[in-house]
Amino acid sequence: MRTSIATVSLSGSLSEKLSAAAAAGFDGVEIFENDLIASPLSPEEIRARVADLGLTVELYQPFRDAEAVPADVLAGNLRRAEHKFRLMRRLGAELLLVCSSVSPDAVDDDALAAEQLHQLASLAGEHGVRVAYEALAWGRHVNTYDHAWRIVQAADHPGLGVCLDSFHILSRGSDPRGIEAIPGEKIFFLQLADAPLMAMDVLQWSRHYRCFPGQGGFDVAALVRHAMDAGYRGPLSLEVFNDVFRQAEAGRTAVDAMRSLVALQESAGLTGLPAPVVPDGIAFAELATADSEPLRRLLTVLGFTRTGQHARKPVELWEQGEARLLLNTGGPARREGPVLAALGLETPEPAAAVARAEPLLAPLVPRRATAPDVPLDVLAAPDGTELFFCRTRPGQPDAEHPSWTQDFVPTRDEPAGERPHHLTRIDHVALPQPWQRFDEAALLYRTVLGLRPRESVELADPYGLFRSRAVANAEGTLRLVLNVAPGPGGPEARPQHIALATDDIVAVARRLRDHGTRPLAIPANYYDDLAARHDLDPDTLDTLRSHGILYDRDEHGEFHHLYTATYGHVFFEVVQRTGGYRGYGAQNATVRLAAQHTRQLTT
Amino acid sequence: MRTSIATVSLSGSLSEKLSAAAAAGFDGVEIFENDLIASPLSPEEIRARVADLGLTVELYQPFRDAEAVPADVLAGNLRRAEHKFRLMRRLGAELLLVCSSVSPDAVDDDALAAEQLHQLASLAGEHGVRVAYEALAWGRHVNTYDHAWRIVQAADHPGLGVCLDSFHILSRGSDPRGIEAIPGEKIFFLQLADAPLMAMDVLQWSRHYRCFPGQGGFDVAALVRHAMDAGYRGPLSLEVFNDVFRQAEAGRTAVDAMRSLVALQESAGLTGLPAPVVPDGIAFAELATADSEPLRRLLTVLGFTRTGQHARKPVELWEQGEARLLLNTGGPARREGPVLAALGLETPEPAAAVARAEPLLAPLVPRRATAPDVPLDVLAAPDGTELFFCRTRPGQPDAEHPSWTQDFVPTRDEPAGERPHHLTRIDHVALPQPWQRFDEAALLYRTVLGLRPRESVELADPYGLFRSRAVANAEGTLRLVLNVAPGPGGPEARPQHIALATDDIVAVARRLRDHGTRPLAIPANYYDDLAARHDLDPDTLDTLRSHGILYDRDEHGEFHHLYTATYGHVFFEVVQRTGGYRGYGAQNATVRLAAQHTRQLTT
Repeated sequence: MRTSIATVSLSGSLSEKLSAAAAAGFDGVEIFENDLIASPLSPEEIRARVADLGLTVELYQPFRDAEAVPADVLAGNLRRAEHKFRLMRRLGAELLLVCSSVSPDAVDDDALAAEQLHQLASLAGEHGVRVAYEALAWGRHVNTYDHAWRIVQAADHPGLGVCLDSFHILSRGSDPRGIEAIPGEKIFFLQLADAPLMAMDVLQWSRHYRCFPGQGGFDVAALVRHAMDAGYRGPLSLEVFNDVFRQAEAGRTAVDAMRSLVALQESAGLTGLPAPVVPDGIAFAELATADSEPLRRLLTVLGFTRTGQHARKPVELWEQGEARLLLNTGGPARREGPVLAALGLETPEPAAAVARAEPLLAPLVPRRATAPDVPLDVLAAPDGTELFFCRTRPGQPDAEHPSWTQDFVPTRDEPAGERPHHLTRIDHVALPQPWQRFDEAALLYRTVLGLRPRESVELADPYGLFRSRAVANAEGTLRLVLNVAPGPGGPEARPQHIALATDDIVAVARRLRDHGTRPLAIPANYYDDLAARHDLDPDTLDTLRSHGILYDRDEHGEFHHLYTATYGHVFFEVVQRTGGYRGYGAQNATVRLAAQHTRQLTT
Repeated sequence: MRTSIATVSLSGSLSEKLSAAAAAGFDGVEIFENDLIASPLSPEEIRARVADLGLTVELYQPFRDAEAVPADVLAGNLRRAEHKFRLMRRLGAELLLVCSSVSPDAVDDDALAAEQLHQLASLAGEHGVRVAYEALAWGRHVNTYDHAWRIVQAADHPGLGVCLDSFHILSRGSDPRGIEAIPGEKIFFLQLADAPLMAMDVLQWSRHYRCFPGQGGFDVAALVRHAMDAGYRGPLSLEVFNDVFRQAEAGRTAVDAMRSLVALQESAGLTGLPAPVVPDGIAFAELATADSEPLRRLLTVLGFTRTGQHARKPVELWEQGEARLLLNTGGPARREGPVLAALGLETPEPAAAVARAEPLLAPLVPRRATAPDVPLDVLAAPDGTELFFCRTRPGQPDAEHPSWTQDFVPTRDEPAGERPHHLTRIDHVALPQPWQRFDEAALLYRTVLGLRPRESVELADPYGLFRSRAVANAEGTLRLVLNVAPGPGGPEARPQHIALATDDIVAVARRLRDHGTRPLAIPANYYDDLAARHDLDPDTLDTLRSHGILYDRDEHGEFHHLYTATYGHVFFEVVQRTGGYRGYGAQNATVRLAAQHTRQLTT
């Protein structure tokens, strides 16, 4: 299918938008009228620029309030339309979008609408252009696609067809199966947008919250399938009004948009992609720091053992159970302390994962490993974290799929058996996202890695609301939490965090206490409230209180967790899940966030 | 009336919130449970802090999902409630807010709800506290205030009353007159919030968009009046969930909140304030700059004459008609170029204006004028601009109301008659606002200065959406436009602008051209579109195009305007209104904003 994007979906000047669309690989664009009007380029210059970039102008839009008006208004409308038809010829646009009238002048008369659209299409024909009529979800008299199609049928002009827009159809809850009743050649254009499911005025919803297919709650793929089954063969064109995309860098948004379309075509069965290779765990988390001593102390207290040293780089491997952390002191000096720089994703077939990532425009980092290091493919996550496709198979030589651990020389400081292994694995990692990449990130993790996004939740911090969304594999063995912090603020206000799983959180807490390492202090008021909400026995409550352990439960089980202090940009959480608890303790986030602010003030 | 604010309305830790509420002059607070739970202070410490600050705890809130549940759930609820009653005693809180259940456990049985609320109130009584029952607008079975009142009546317990919340009542369109049917002593509490009128899910609306009374679209004053008429004598308490206030500095928000309550009491007829002294024009605009030469050149080209020099400061007065600009080179060096530092507001009775501003907590700047300068009172606007209450009466000596112009020594460079006077006055001034002060600003201008805010509009910039709201006096002789720019970005992305009125914009444009001063370049595409939209004759269109003049019309008249280049933080607009046009050319804002970005790129 040809791919297209409306210029209104991207930020910047018209020429910036065109460049971004071309660079992302789109075949064509819809020229949004305001973008043309505000451009210093003449229509002929725009046409030349579009051609130079290998694009085509698929649609000029919108033309408003055209139909079902009194005769005197019609004359003015036709005059106005003729101006636009002449402009379209200069621009090289052959199709005009006419959206259903919202004007108080319009009358509720389908026959009149049809007659006037026929006149409009006839006039368009004289200029060599065609007209696609679209029902706006908030159109005055025409606001469903089947109604628009009845009028187009009645108008019966070869230069008049319908434009279908997934937002206008799905936001009203219309059944898209009716699309198959429209002959494919009368569907002149197909505009696609998704949106989060919200109960709000449809005009505001449309103007601010549209997003790319796969980022919201609509089944856009099924709608595309119906249009295909009807015989539609025109472009798939994204038209997204979104407050975030308006501000974000156009080139990046265009890539996000194209990724959405590639994945949409796969979902709709129009193209095949290599199947997702879903990672089944976190192989390692790599912390970059100039001074590794504070972290070494903490990891030792947490029960980690230094088990390896990279053969050629200043990187240490620390292990406990299946939890593996790398301490890298070889990067650029980071005065502000440790930062989570990379994650190893346990990937059964790294090459197959890359084969899927490439057509989905995932930002793959050129391989930097120099022999004899194990070569690893790296994906740059939207927040800048590097995600390594890797396998952990120590002691299992496999030339085709070498284990990343081969680069490390064992340096066991002490027999591993001497330390209790309370921490078993990395439960999840929380990655703060730039505000403009939250939806992009969820889509990337879903499409490229086959992870499943959960619902977004809001968490109250003393200084604003966080948005938080988990992505995980089906088994829950790989869990990432994407956060967006409120308001402005640097990375110090947006720490990353690594949650380590345990089967005995009290033992971990005792170990911390015995080594003089205080966990994040949780207010006594929290435990009073816990006593009110849950019928916990006093001893249990005392244990939780004395160790700063937080508690939550859902219908599946229980969750206990505690937090360390923050080291640079990173803090650690220790979590114990029992009985299939699926959440992340969101209930306790307000208390944790407030406690972290308190700690900042007092340390 | 006693005044109170819920801690959830303010940002920060609980102790920050309490300090802010006390500093703004509130008598009491509602303690929001999550604020207490997240606080490291014990209930006794909070009680002491509240007392030290001269506050009282008016309410503890909320207690959820209490009523109309099966017997086994009730036992748990009463246990939970007893915990909270004990906590309230420690805290010194005597009233608990119970909001109507949203739980799937709750059954639709008013008698059962009444019976269980009676039990709850009895238990509360044993702990010396009382219960106020409130209908949440999204309550499962109880979601209107009259329904809550019927249940309280049926429960018939002296320790049980209703809590009324203006948002829950007005958001559902309930008629607040029914409040008068409730005996005043059974209205235990009155929570107040306003909200912009929006068509959206009421829960989301409530959680994110509430604002202080006078900042939204509800008639909160009428509701307060009904509660008074019913005999309510408890506190007026603000409870506002707002995404912006959550992030903004608590002290400033608390002052904004108190200003809202002061104005609300005036509107409801509960207190009197000195009447507003509405300014009837802009006396002057003061531009601060290290290098005044570029502005002098521009002002000269625009037809201004330097008419005065401050007797004791490096400030020049430039005049044309009633338009007066001050060029001040005496401030701190501003390398980035001119900034609009102050406006003189033509104020009939400056002392009376101050007398109103003070009880409304307007940020008055201590007088700095040293004799013999004319003493002027100054209001610091939310964006930092200084607003001078002043009078322009040159040549009319009046010891009590001296004209600010007395400080200037006439320095007429040339006879005024030599230059044509095309510019007549300052039509409006556009002031970019910090994102967190937009609503505060509109409220301040409305309450303190008696200006009328218009609807907010959205303007599409190539890099995001602006919000823009005009405030003006009834005659339109004083107009300010408040803007909030999208996204992050420094002052250079948020220029101020001064619009100068003319009766002959073409003459002004010709003057600019004759002096080689190019106005902001408007794309040819704009004029093509103008020709399509309006039936302008070709000569008129040519004139507009050749001079970069923009055009708009409304049902009252026409609007012509052009823009200069940007000088530092400021640009100028020249506007011609004919036939009573009331707007500001919002229709053309997208083109203007894009042209300004283009100019930045090419200059």
